[in-house]
Amino acid sequence: MLIFYADKHAAHDCAGEIKDGELKPCFENPTRADAIAAAFKSAGFTNIQVPADHGKMTITAVHDEQYVAFLETAWNDWTAAGRSGDIVPLVWPGKGMRVDVAPQTIDGKLGLYCFDSGTPICPGTWEVAYQGAQSAISTAKAVWNGPEQHAFSFSRPPGHHAMPSQYGGYCFLNNAAIAAQTLRDEGAARVAVLDVDYHHGNGTQAIFYERNDVMVVNIHSDPTSEYPYYLGHAEEIGDGVGSGYNLNLPLPKGTSWQTYLPTLEQAIQKLIAYAPEALVLSFGADTFKEDPLGFFELETEHYVEIGKRVAAINLPTAIILEGGYAIDELGTNVVALLSGFASN
Amino acid sequence: MLIFYADKHAAHDCAGEIKDGELKPCFENPTRADAIAAAFKSAGFTNIQVPADHGKMTITAVHDEQYVAFLETAWNDWTAAGRSGDIVPLVWPGKGMRVDVAPQTIDGKLGLYCFDSGTPICPGTWEVAYQGAQSAISTAKAVWNGPEQHAFSFSRPPGHHAMPSQYGGYCFLNNAAIAAQTLRDEGAARVAVLDVDYHHGNGTQAIFYERNDVMVVNIHSDPTSEYPYYLGHAEEIGDGVGSGYNLNLPLPKGTSWQTYLPTLEQAIQKLIAYAPEALVLSFGADTFKEDPLGFFELETEHYVEIGKRVAAINLPTAIILEGGYAIDELGTNVVALLSGFASN
Repeated sequence: MLIFYADKHAAHDCAGEIKDGELKPCFENPTRADAIAAAFKSAGFTNIQVPADHGKMTITAVHDEQYVAFLETAWNDWTAAGRSGDIVPLVWPGKGMRVDVAPQTIDGKLGLYCFDSGTPICPGTWEVAYQGAQSAISTAKAVWNGPEQHAFSFSRPPGHHAMPSQYGGYCFLNNAAIAAQTLRDEGAARVAVLDVDYHHGNGTQAIFYERNDVMVVNIHSDPTSEYPYYLGHAEEIGDGVGSGYNLNLPLPKGTSWQTYLPTLEQAIQKLIAYAPEALVLSFGADTFKEDPLGFFELETEHYVEIGKRVAAINLPTAIILEGGYAIDELGTNVVALLSGFASN
Repeated sequence: MLIFYADKHAAHDCAGEIKDGELKPCFENPTRADAIAAAFKSAGFTNIQVPADHGKMTITAVHDEQYVAFLETAWNDWTAAGRSGDIVPLVWPGKGMRVDVAPQTIDGKLGLYCFDSGTPICPGTWEVAYQGAQSAISTAKAVWNGPEQHAFSFSRPPGHHAMPSQYGGYCFLNNAAIAAQTLRDEGAARVAVLDVDYHHGNGTQAIFYERNDVMVVNIHSDPTSEYPYYLGHAEEIGDGVGSGYNLNLPLPKGTSWQTYLPTLEQAIQKLIAYAPEALVLSFGADTFKEDPLGFFELETEHYVEIGKRVAAINLPTAIILEGGYAIDELGTNVVALLSGFASN
C-alpha cells in the first residue's frame, strides 16, 4: 500500500476543546497519527512518502478564496490582537444577523468562517492543514497515474466537515473534496466519494451538492441526534444538475455490522451505477465499537471487509483519513482497512 | 427612585465563559448585583420591591414561543442527556446548512437557539431570566400607571442581546423589549427605547425592526470591530413599516464624554421627534473608562448627566439594567445614573 504521510501534523496540537460544555483535552491530537504510524511499522508498511507541495490551486477550487486566506492568517491576526490561547470563536451571525458586512477584526471573522466551538486553532494549524491537503492531492495523483491503484493519505486533522467557506468538526480543509477535485483535474470524467466516517461528511456534500461530475455517498449516524445535526438527512439528494448525485444513508446509534453491511452494499451499488472513473474513500475509524465519539458497533475485522468491498469496485481509489478517536485500536483498524484493500 | 429587584439572580452563576479562546471566570456574575445592592443601601434607596409574576404572555409577544420553551427546558434536557457542566453550544448551522429540520437532541437545538459560545446556561438560568423579565414588566407597569415617573429594573443577567429566537451576549430574555411591549400593552401609542450600553442592543433592534410603534435608538461601539459584529451598523434604519424607526449611532473605541454627549443629544432629539408616550432606557455601565469589556472613557459624573438628560424628556421611563463589569465602580455608576434622574 502506497502511503503519503503529512509528517508536520504534530504542529496542530491545541490545548483543549469544548465538549459537553467543558474544556477538555483534544480528542483529535497528534497521538492519533503516532498510533497509526506505529501500526504501519508493525504491519511492515514501508512505502511511505512525504507529499510534495502542489500549491493552493486545488484547495481554492473547492474552498472560497477569502476563507483560505482567513485560515492562512488567522493565527497571526489573533496574536496581533493580543491573544495567546488557542482560537475559539465567541459569536456567530445567528438568524436575523448580517453576513454582508465584512468584520474588520479576527473575532468578527471567526463567526463567519467557523460553524463550531470545539475546533480550536493553534499556531501550527494552517501549516498542518495545508500539508494534509497536499497529501490528499498526492494520493489522488498517484492512484490516477498508477501503477498503484490504491493509496492512503495519512494526515490529521480530518477534513470532511470543512464547508466551502467554514471550518468545524476538527476540519479546516476538505481533503476528500480536494482529492476528488484532483482526480477530476487529472482527467477522471466522473469521481465518486464514499464517506464511511461515523459522522456525516457535511462539507464534502456541500462542496459537490450542485455538481454531477462528483457523486457523494455518505453512511453515517442519523443527524437528527448526532453531529453535525444540520446536514446529512436522507432527503438531501443534491440540487440543480447535482440532483440525484448525493446519497445519504443515515443509521441509528448502536448500528452493528449486520445492519451496516447491507447499507454499505447499497452505497456501493449506487456508486457503481454512476460508473465513476475514480473513487475517494473518506475513512473514519470512529464507527469502531469502542470509539469515544462514535456509537456504532463495528469491530476490527469489519474494516478488512470494508476494504475488500471497496477494492472490489476496481477503481483508482484515494483513501483519506477522517476521524477515529479510540487511540489504542486506531492503528490496528486503519491497518485492517488497508489490508482489506491489499488482499483484493 | 422606585426599584424592582429580581432577588433570585444569584441562581444564575455559571462556572466559566469562553473569552479570547480560553475558559475564564464569568464577567457576568452575581457580584454585579451584590455591588449594586450595596451601593443602593449606602445611597439610602429603600423603595425596593420584588416583582410580581405577570406570566409569560409579554415574553412570548417579543420572543418565539418555541425558543422560550427551549430555554425553559434546556437544563433538564442537558442533564437528561448525561451532562453535568454548564451548557455551551458546540455547533451551529453555518452557511449552507439547514435550519428547517428540528433536531431531536439538546445539542442540535443549542445551535438553533444560540448565537454565542460565551453565554453558558446553568441550573438556575431560566428561573433567573424569567424573574428578570417579570422585573422589567413590573417596572414598565409602574411608570405607566404612576405615581412614579421613573423606575429601575434591577436584574441580571442583561437582556438586550437576546434575539427573537436566540440567546447570546449573556442575554436570554430581552428585558428592554419586554418592558417596551408592556408599555404598548398598557396603552402607550408609541414607545421609544434608548440603549446606551457599550455594546449594540442587537436583540432589541431585531425584535422591533419591522415595527413603527416602538422606536429603537442605540449608541454603542462600532460593530465593525466590536461585539456583536453582525448588527449595529449605521445603515440599519428599520424595514417595512419600521423603516426610519431604528437609529444606530456607532462610536469608535476610546470615545470620551466630549464625543459621547453630542451623540446622546442627537439620539434624544430623534426620540423627541417621534413623540413617544413612554421610554425604555437600556442602561449599561460598560461605557465606564475602567470596564474590562468596554472601551469608552466615560466617568461616574457622566452617568449623572445621562440620567438628567433622559429624565428631561419628561416621559414615563423604565430603566433596565444591561451590562457593566467594572464591579468596584458598578454600584456607584448605577447610583449616579439614578441620582441624575432624581435630581431632574
